[in-house]
Amino acid sequence: MSSESVLVAPTLGQRLKCFIEAPLVQRILLALILINSVSLGLETMPGLMAVAGPVIQVLDKAILTVFVLEIAIRLYVYRLNFFKDAWSVFDFIVVTIALLPASGPFAVLRALRVLRVLRVLTFVPSMKKIVGALVQSLNGMLSIAMVLSLVYYVAAVMVTKLFGEAFPEWFGGLGASLYTLFQVMTLESWSMGIARPVMEQFPYAWLFFVPFILIATFTMLNLFIAVIVNAVQSMHDEEHKAEHDADVATQQQLLLQMQLLQQELTELRTELKKPNSE
Amino acid sequence: MSSESVLVAPTLGQRLKCFIEAPLVQRILLALILINSVSLGLETMPGLMAVAGPVIQVLDKAILTVFVLEIAIRLYVYRLNFFKDAWSVFDFIVVTIALLPASGPFAVLRALRVLRVLRVLTFVPSMKKIVGALVQSLNGMLSIAMVLSLVYYVAAVMVTKLFGEAFPEWFGGLGASLYTLFQVMTLESWSMGIARPVMEQFPYAWLFFVPFILIATFTMLNLFIAVIVNAVQSMHDEEHKAEHDADVATQQQLLLQMQLLQQELTELRTELKKPNSE
Amino acid sequence: MSSESVLVAPTLGQRLKCFIEAPLVQRILLALILINSVSLGLETMPGLMAVAGPVIQVLDKAILTVFVLEIAIRLYVYRLNFFKDAWSVFDFIVVTIALLPASGPFAVLRALRVLRVLRVLTFVPSMKKIVGALVQSLNGMLSIAMVLSLVYYVAAVMVTKLFGEAFPEWFGGLGASLYTLFQVMTLESWSMGIARPVMEQFPYAWLFFVPFILIATFTMLNLFIAVIVNAVQSMHDEEHKAEHDADVATQQQLLLQMQLLQQELTELRTELKKPNSE
Amino acid sequence: MSSESVLVAPTLGQRLKCFIEAPLVQRILLALILINSVSLGLETMPGLMAVAGPVIQVLDKAILTVFVLEIAIRLYVYRLNFFKDAWSVFDFIVVTIALLPASGPFAVLRALRVLRVLRVLTFVPSMKKIVGALVQSLNGMLSIAMVLSLVYYVAAVMVTKLFGEAFPEWFGGLGASLYTLFQVMTLESWSMGIARPVMEQFPYAWLFFVPFILIATFTMLNLFIAVIVNAVQSMHDEEHKAEHDADVATQQQLLLQMQLLQQELTELRTELKKPNSE
Repeated sequence: MSSESVLVAPTLGQRLKCFIEAPLVQRILLALILINSVSLGLETMPGLMAVAGPVIQVLDKAILTVFVLEIAIRLYVYRLNFFKDAWSVFDFIVVTIALLPASGPFAVLRALRVLRVLRVLTFVPSMKKIVGALVQSLNGMLSIAMVLSLVYYVAAVMVTKLFGEAFPEWFGGLGASLYTLFQVMTLESWSMGIARPVMEQFPYAWLFFVPFILIATFTMLNLFIAVIVNAVQSMHDEEHKAEHDADVATQQQLLLQMQLLQQELTELRTELKKPNSE
Repeated sequence: MSSESVLVAPTLGQRLKCFIEAPLVQRILLALILINSVSLGLETMPGLMAVAGPVIQVLDKAILTVFVLEIAIRLYVYRLNFFKDAWSVFDFIVVTIALLPASGPFAVLRALRVLRVLRVLTFVPSMKKIVGALVQSLNGMLSIAMVLSLVYYVAAVMVTKLFGEAFPEWFGGLGASLYTLFQVMTLESWSMGIARPVMEQFPYAWLFFVPFILIATFTMLNLFIAVIVNAVQSMHDEEHKAEHDADVATQQQLLLQMQLLQQELTELRTELKKPNSE
Repeated sequence: MSSESVLVAPTLGQRLKCFIEAPLVQRILLALILINSVSLGLETMPGLMAVAGPVIQVLDKAILTVFVLEIAIRLYVYRLNFFKDAWSVFDFIVVTIALLPASGPFAVLRALRVLRVLRVLTFVPSMKKIVGALVQSLNGMLSIAMVLSLVYYVAAVMVTKLFGEAFPEWFGGLGASLYTLFQVMTLESWSMGIARPVMEQFPYAWLFFVPFILIATFTMLNLFIAVIVNAVQSMHDEEHKAEHDADVATQQQLLLQMQLLQQELTELRTELKKPNSE
Repeated sequence: MSSESVLVAPTLGQRLKCFIEAPLVQRILLALILINSVSLGLETMPGLMAVAGPVIQVLDKAILTVFVLEIAIRLYVYRLNFFKDAWSVFDFIVVTIALLPASGPFAVLRALRVLRVLRVLTFVPSMKKIVGALVQSLNGMLSIAMVLSLVYYVAAVMVTKLFGEAFPEWFGGLGASLYTLFQVMTLESWSMGIARPVMEQFPYAWLFFVPFILIATFTMLNLFIAVIVNAVQSMHDEEHKAEHDADVATQQQLLLQMQLLQQELTELRTELKKPNSE
């Protein structure tokens, strides 16, 4: 907002930008999301829907219209920059889902409409920051996650070939095997539910399951440790750096002072020599 | 306890305050709580209650009377300040529960009477400190907990809409869904008990369960990491600060010494110059 | 072993002490424990015991005799100091178990004989150190463990009173309740196995189970964090102290040097003043 | 590659070394591994194999031939040094498995062929580094792992003797007991599946299971803590060392400067004394 913008009439884009970024508008939008959160929750109650269903649906439609307008304005204001911000893309997708026809094979989209509630994250800065930190902490885990995926893939192919024919429900295909191995990694019913029945037909199946659990759990643990160490490190760095900088500053001051002292001493010596030489 | 209080006769309030805060009275109260803890435990043994039931119940009544008196005295002494201390409020609630009629629909209150045993926490300083630390460590988790709650709510609404009709016992309403999702997050029977039966009717249900487990577990992990990092940080801060302060003190001493040195040198120069100029 | 002991004939105690502490004897004892470990393991194989049973049992008896002699010698040498060392007491108990008659109601003692294998811990210093560290890390957990026990006790009494009559197998008495709550805390079948059946009769039972799991898990987590923080702290302390001591030493040297400088300067001034005053 | 090698004709070994270490060859090998990973995955799909089976198998054979050639070249180039690198040994084993006849009792080797996919780890430096770090972090856990194994062995012998006859499926032999105890340690169905049925016959069985879970979990936790502490320490050391070195350097500079100052002062004094003595 340069001083010129006061003189020249603002364009429509500038006026819409001011409007959509105004704290009051933001607060109204947050309020609408919260109201919508409650109304979407109420929709799951059949007893209430029989009575107040139409009212709630009209409310939902109205709020959705406001959201569509909001996204449209932001699209007009920021143009392609809109899609450079991950949060805006998230808002865009979540609102778009509600506009798609949710009939026939897409009936599941009706359930996805509740994702709109997650827009609260976009509007509350403290929550936005936390989700940002969570996503960022994923970065440090990326390379270990890739190793884990590779181990997973190899284990799934092996297990499909080994037990696929005998236990089609659990290991019938690559997909089924991956799901079952995920279950095994969470340790849910891995022995009583999966490994023991398999061992009845393949007595040496534990040679696969026990090492798989050890490797998967240990790698998973290292994923977590990577996150912890990163967190401790970044906390440490911030705190320590300020302190260390202060230390360095004091020592620099000491050095400077000492150089001044030496300079003065040298000057003194030359002064003392002069009268001698006179 | 100003010097005047020795001269003027202490009021009833002052005398009661001295009485209730006296170490001996505190120790007697702690002993009564411990006795009560045992007697409340004994009440769960039907065989013993058939024999010694009346004695134990009289003991319980007597101890409760002492507790009511104690709370009454503290209320009289501290007045409204009583309710400003969370521990006092806890004592108040726990004793009040025992006074409420526990018949008919409130029969559950009879079981809650045992909460009185937790008053041990109020009377043993080391335990009080630990509970305080536990509660305080919750603060650092608040904002992540809110994000987790939001994810929970959205997941519960989605799951109710998706699987509610087919599996009313697990996902019949928002409450049932929240409980089932809590179970899934603890990984208890999530696959064999919940996800696999659901997948028989909705083959793509794993598209909900696997990401939900990953997100919920990862966010939960970050809750824990927040607590760990806070704990390490506060430990670090305390320890480090003392050390750093000592370092800074030494460096300040060095600087001061150096300034004195320079001062002396300057004085020396001026002294040397004087005779020359004379 | 003063110089006199060379001249005077050593007593029986001194000679036994030298014998039992000799590295060779220690190594032979360790070898016997390891052989015994294998033989005790072989005893679990019925097929092998039918063939080589008598040989293995004679071997076991022989090794046990050596152990009894060893403990007897150590008892004679160290007298009551023997019982001041936790490891010696452990050795004593473990060997004594094997001497008790293991018939009738004490048949279980026969199984406890294998505890003898744990004497390896006493003879391998690196393992001894680790177990020592594990036991020591329990100290830091003591006060939280007490809070956890209190919460446990209160929960067990409550649950016995609430669900004891309806579910005697799980909550029939204080012992049964404590065991079931331990199971719930490990999250094993807590919902499908325990909470859901209970909720069929007491629909609000989740009001007990969900908070109990949250509180127990959170307190347990803090137990672990206490151990982690202690470990990090002690590691930090050791490492940091040496470094800090070096820093302090350097700074002390600086200060000393500076005081010498100042002293010299002061002397210089007085020297310079003298001729002036002359 | 000395300057002479340009003049003298390189030997076959040198030329093969250049060839096999060339970035392009490495990239082609990585591409072949990735293609092979997909083809090995496709082999698990019966529908696809019915159509494209022969093509995929020819592709697999061709890629395997390339791998065999690659290993042969590396063996020729590095000779016995080849087996000094753990990664080379891994490559060798994984490729050898595919050459073994996989019929009759060795049919399981067919499933192990997919281990070849793990060669990706050898060719992607970032993944190689992570696996190296994971393996290295095992070192710090070695001694605790040995203590844990010992506890495991003792527990398995005990449990076989105690419950072996009554529950042969779970505790029938040392192997069965070790597997069941591993299951108990992962907390999978430990109570509802194992401990409660055992307790129906041996009411005091919880005296074994509850302490075993506490000890095994606590020792396991300490394994993890050892890894965390090591990770934090090594991170700390690296970062801290550079900083500390800088501090020490500054302090050394200060000391030197001060010594120079003192030297100059001493010279000044001798200079001043000289004219006096003259």
